Amino acid sequence: MRAARTIKFTVGQHLEGRRRWGLSRPAAAALAGHDETFVRANDSVSLPLDGATERRARKRLSEARTAIDPVLRAAIGSLAEPLDRMAGYHFGWCDADGVELEGAQGKSLRPALTFAAAAACGGSVQDAVHAAAAVELLHNFSLVHDDVMDTAPFRHGRPTVWRVWGETNATLLGDALQALALGVLCDGAPEAVTAEAVIRLARTTVTLCRGQYEDCAFETRPTVTVDEYLNMAAGKTGALLGCACALGALCAGADHRVVSAMHTFGTELGLVFQLVDDFIDIWGDPAITGKPAHSDLIHRKQSFPVVCALESETAAGRDLARLYQSRHPMTAARAARAADMVEQAGGRQRTLGRASASLDAAFAALPDDLATDDLTALAHLVARRDH
Amino acid sequence: MRAARTIKFTVGQHLEGRRRWGLSRPAAAALAGHDETFVRANDSVSLPLDGATERRARKRLSEARTAIDPVLRAAIGSLAEPLDRMAGYHFGWCDADGVELEGAQGKSLRPALTFAAAAACGGSVQDAVHAAAAVELLHNFSLVHDDVMDTAPFRHGRPTVWRVWGETNATLLGDALQALALGVLCDGAPEAVTAEAVIRLARTTVTLCRGQYEDCAFETRPTVTVDEYLNMAAGKTGALLGCACALGALCAGADHRVVSAMHTFGTELGLVFQLVDDFIDIWGDPAITGKPAHSDLIHRKQSFPVVCALESETAAGRDLARLYQSRHPMTAARAARAADMVEQAGGRQRTLGRASASLDAAFAALPDDLATDDLTALAHLVARRDH
Repeated sequence: MRAARTIKFTVGQHLEGRRRWGLSRPAAAALAGHDETFVRANDSVSLPLDGATERRARKRLSEARTAIDPVLRAAIGSLAEPLDRMAGYHFGWCDADGVELEGAQGKSLRPALTFAAAAACGGSVQDAVHAAAAVELLHNFSLVHDDVMDTAPFRHGRPTVWRVWGETNATLLGDALQALALGVLCDGAPEAVTAEAVIRLARTTVTLCRGQYEDCAFETRPTVTVDEYLNMAAGKTGALLGCACALGALCAGADHRVVSAMHTFGTELGLVFQLVDDFIDIWGDPAITGKPAHSDLIHRKQSFPVVCALESETAAGRDLARLYQSRHPMTAARAARAADMVEQAGGRQRTLGRASASLDAAFAALPDDLATDDLTALAHLVARRDH
Repeated sequence: MRAARTIKFTVGQHLEGRRRWGLSRPAAAALAGHDETFVRANDSVSLPLDGATERRARKRLSEARTAIDPVLRAAIGSLAEPLDRMAGYHFGWCDADGVELEGAQGKSLRPALTFAAAAACGGSVQDAVHAAAAVELLHNFSLVHDDVMDTAPFRHGRPTVWRVWGETNATLLGDALQALALGVLCDGAPEAVTAEAVIRLARTTVTLCRGQYEDCAFETRPTVTVDEYLNMAAGKTGALLGCACALGALCAGADHRVVSAMHTFGTELGLVFQLVDDFIDIWGDPAITGKPAHSDLIHRKQSFPVVCALESETAAGRDLARLYQSRHPMTAARAARAADMVEQAGGRQRTLGRASASLDAAFAALPDDLATDDLTALAHLVARRDH
């Protein structure tokens, strides 16, 4: 029963806890990954985030945004008109006509992880700034293309790039952002690690595409298994967070073992991110998330809670299957009923349990001296965010 | 009048001729680029290719295809199903179900240029093979995305990837191919030049996107100037041929000056390639090209001959402008009349002249000892191909 307590730690107590209860890293990882009974009993990600941790994490996000800003703007500025303006619009720097805007910008979670990973390994902001900008560019390449593929009308409350400039130009902007990411990394990563950094980013892109492919393919399939879902999410979301952390360590001169540990940490954290995303879609507050309620359910998406409910072999799971397969339009009322069915079929609890397990696996992968307060705060922000 | 004779050299006589007539490189380049009278008088690219040169060039293409084959297949093989199968289909290795095919494959012009540039600088096939595979992958990234953007139904007589697997998956395959190109280069380019090689390839990708953007933007514009066209073509086609040659030199350990000369050589050759493409669309033999006649004219494209005709201030040019602006459907008969108008307005002659000038500028950029028989043969194959 010792194991079950290890993932009930509150923020900042993770490592002390692991030490106190004497759980070995492999044992924690194995349990966290595979013992469903154990997982179901846990719910640490549903606890509210304490104020100090949230402030620490948000400060790191804000610093990361500031640090990469000149590198990002220089990279985007190297694009020819109007690709530079389209990118500026997407990043929230200007309107569609190029008039400067203040405010609304992305979260910068990935760059913040790169900086925090670098700092944990003794690196400076300067060591990691190009890697941090590169992961942000690659993230935005995937957002711009995803919006085209999903025909998503809005992002952060503004019309998506493809809606303003058309699908062709949005595809081209994404292509250019992917190339810029690699270019920025080559231009500025510490010379001794440039090649390895670029290989990692290029491989991450291939993995991202695989994950996105699977996510799209799921839409036309009646069922998806939990393992298939987790594999998809590891590609679509885990790979880039893993890369963000690994590049931070690499640019700080960490050895192979540490880089690899940071990669696992980030990949598991990416799974947490995706699971929480799926969770928020169903049980988040639209007033806080800023997104329409039950969007995944309305689009009959095989999100993680839905996958769990459909394979639960419960009455509620069977009701959900019928609702998903029916030809009736998925109205808001039906989606609300679907949300209840998912919960009754255990989808809510299993999602929280799996997110907890992945959070624990993330920390289990890190050598004790690397789980700094900053990485811990960022990880818990990911796990306990409400938007 | 000495200058005018310099670009009438037959294959293999380029350098001897330049030496014989004592024309300096800058003078040749300046003349080739800007003297329209001079350019119009020349027609070297319309001469047939002699048999020995064609055999030499085709042998280099075939060797390049063989040399990169294992690297390409390993890279594609690293993609998850079905992206690997989609790529194999696109490369002509298999049908849509993955059943192996023999025969039909791409020309491998870009890899052949990489190998020839490397050899000119004393490098081996092994030095250049990853760079050659990388440029071929990047070329195919752009083909797969272009086919989506242009809604092109066929490539090499087979349905395009987006028609078999949908636009979303074709976009993802292109994204993955772009990343694979960088990955292959990082994995295998000589270590001393990996970073520079990757930067060059990433910048090339950004330039490609800019060129493709402009090409798309031209479609909605009533007129395009010759300079705008040439700038677009330098991005869309010149950049990758320039990169192919520069990477060959770089991987062979050539110094900065030589790499830069090879880049200019390839960029100018890329312009020739695009101009000949435009030429063939109007005056090529569909039985030889394998493409429908007058496809550019039917789509009212601003190809180079059309741009020249529209700005010619001739009666035929004005007729063409009226035909392009009319709302009547562009039937095959109307397109045939458009072809006559383009020719009467001087578009055919100016295209040949400009292609000749670019071919000359390509050779003018190369130090004498680098214009090997192989590079010369490949360049003349580009300039005088009929398909």
